[in-house]
Amino acid sequence: MRDLRVDLFSGDVIIFAPDRTGRPTDMKKIEDEKELANIYEEKCPFCRGNEELSAGTTFQIKGDSGWICKSIYNKYPIIEEGAIGISGIHEVIIDTYRHNGSFYNMSEIEFKNMFLAYQNRYKEYIENKDTVYISIFKNFLKKAGASLAHPHSQIISMSLVPKYIKNEVEVLKEYYESKKESLYEKVINEEISLNERVVYNGEKFLVLIPYASMYNNEVRIICKDSSKFENLSEVNLNELSYIFKKVFEKIYIECGYMPFNLCMHAHPKGLENDNLFHLHFHVIPRKYNFGGFEVSNGIYVSSTKPQDFAKKIKFK
Amino acid sequence: MRDLRVDLFSGDVIIFAPDRTGRPTDMKKIEDEKELANIYEEKCPFCRGNEELSAGTTFQIKGDSGWICKSIYNKYPIIEEGAIGISGIHEVIIDTYRHNGSFYNMSEIEFKNMFLAYQNRYKEYIENKDTVYISIFKNFLKKAGASLAHPHSQIISMSLVPKYIKNEVEVLKEYYESKKESLYEKVINEEISLNERVVYNGEKFLVLIPYASMYNNEVRIICKDSSKFENLSEVNLNELSYIFKKVFEKIYIECGYMPFNLCMHAHPKGLENDNLFHLHFHVIPRKYNFGGFEVSNGIYVSSTKPQDFAKKIKFK
Repeated sequence: MRDLRVDLFSGDVIIFAPDRTGRPTDMKKIEDEKELANIYEEKCPFCRGNEELSAGTTFQIKGDSGWICKSIYNKYPIIEEGAIGISGIHEVIIDTYRHNGSFYNMSEIEFKNMFLAYQNRYKEYIENKDTVYISIFKNFLKKAGASLAHPHSQIISMSLVPKYIKNEVEVLKEYYESKKESLYEKVINEEISLNERVVYNGEKFLVLIPYASMYNNEVRIICKDSSKFENLSEVNLNELSYIFKKVFEKIYIECGYMPFNLCMHAHPKGLENDNLFHLHFHVIPRKYNFGGFEVSNGIYVSSTKPQDFAKKIKFK
Repeated sequence: MRDLRVDLFSGDVIIFAPDRTGRPTDMKKIEDEKELANIYEEKCPFCRGNEELSAGTTFQIKGDSGWICKSIYNKYPIIEEGAIGISGIHEVIIDTYRHNGSFYNMSEIEFKNMFLAYQNRYKEYIENKDTVYISIFKNFLKKAGASLAHPHSQIISMSLVPKYIKNEVEVLKEYYESKKESLYEKVINEEISLNERVVYNGEKFLVLIPYASMYNNEVRIICKDSSKFENLSEVNLNELSYIFKKVFEKIYIECGYMPFNLCMHAHPKGLENDNLFHLHFHVIPRKYNFGGFEVSNGIYVSSTKPQDFAKKIKFK
């Protein structure tokens, strides 16, 4: 059976076709990327002790033997300051000093340091008068777009609100105008009471596998109220760290050393109805590529049941 | 230098940053997929003689030793007839009986047969009262979404106009209303007179590397007038076959055995201003994956100069 689903927040149309997973294939499996063994690599620009290979430090958290998490300018920025059309600053956040660190083996404390770095850099750039949006994201493994192996995230301040965020803001506004309620509040309440796709229902955050997503087995982490990222408390960051530790432990068990993107979607600056937008994170599996159907049409095919994956990675 | 470009037909925003190609990487190169050696494979459902492994034939072109190109129903359809929300028929077109055939080694005659099959199936489905759009596309190699190695294309009739096409129709209409001219005509004329990004300027088709594209080194093949796919003459299909043979010969020299998608964008049915829409084909390289910046924001980074690639693959 086929079923047409719509991601309410993006308007993306998804053809839900779980029986397509049985298709035969004669293609050679593309080898999984290997897990890293060494805590230090001589030529890695992000390793402790190799500071001369990278750009200047903008923030750091120190441990007994040196920095354990830090941010630096990106030597190859996507966006530059003062450029025409779109301008901003592009930094790299080195999630942990451990070259062989990854979301699959980082401790809660390491996640916490990383989120503290995210927030520190975010708070600095959100004050810039030209900045209207800040994007934080992470590419893990080559298939997800990474060019360096050392675990790192990226933060980019922007002088324009990117398409996907602009679109979501528009959707939230239209929904509110026609239904007189907040789409986020509605979905959060419905998902909690249905309790089929919920992975974790916490104090501040809800973790779920979306009813409809462009990406099979996407994990979405949604703030339950409309708090802004820059205002999250230490307690909130602790909860996020707990969630990330748990989610990636579970993903590793189910999917192995899987390439993924982390995308943080925070409030654009100067939003009219700040309370309609909820901070959220997308964890997007990148094991499989889209085919020509998706690339050509902008319609997506989903072959996994969200409730099945939710059950597998649900926190006990 | 950074430069913001907009794909006028899709509205996609592209950050043009050609200096980013110099970035260092320590990731292991993902092995290229191997070229196939055998003209026949015993277990391949698309090979001649293995008809019992696949669904029923809908059209075929015969040679001396049996069919040389044919279409069959897809055993694992994305879309089904009579389904709710979106319905239609999904067929597979076997580009050539040769298991080791590919766009990189097919003859002009093989391309011609393939286009005849495309057109035959297209003509049949466009008559269906529920069909409003027909998508033809091709996935070549696993990175581009292929699950079977034997060279094949896909055709899907649809009861709804997909997002990207709907969007393009809207853009063309708005452009015409505000500027009183056809966007396609304008761009075609400008590109021809500029002659920097043009790969081939033919009788019926123009081949160019777009000024702005989501995908680095995309090749776009545009019909110079607003003819519909179902009305292309044999002479037009001959020109297309010549173009495809040449383009893929050139791509092979420059990029090797590269994964790609072919996306045909034809007129949706019942369009108000049929003449604003021009049939076109996107050849989309899939060697590299998008990273989190693109996935998160819907803004694309271009690191290659269209005029450089145009020069490389220009027809002599």
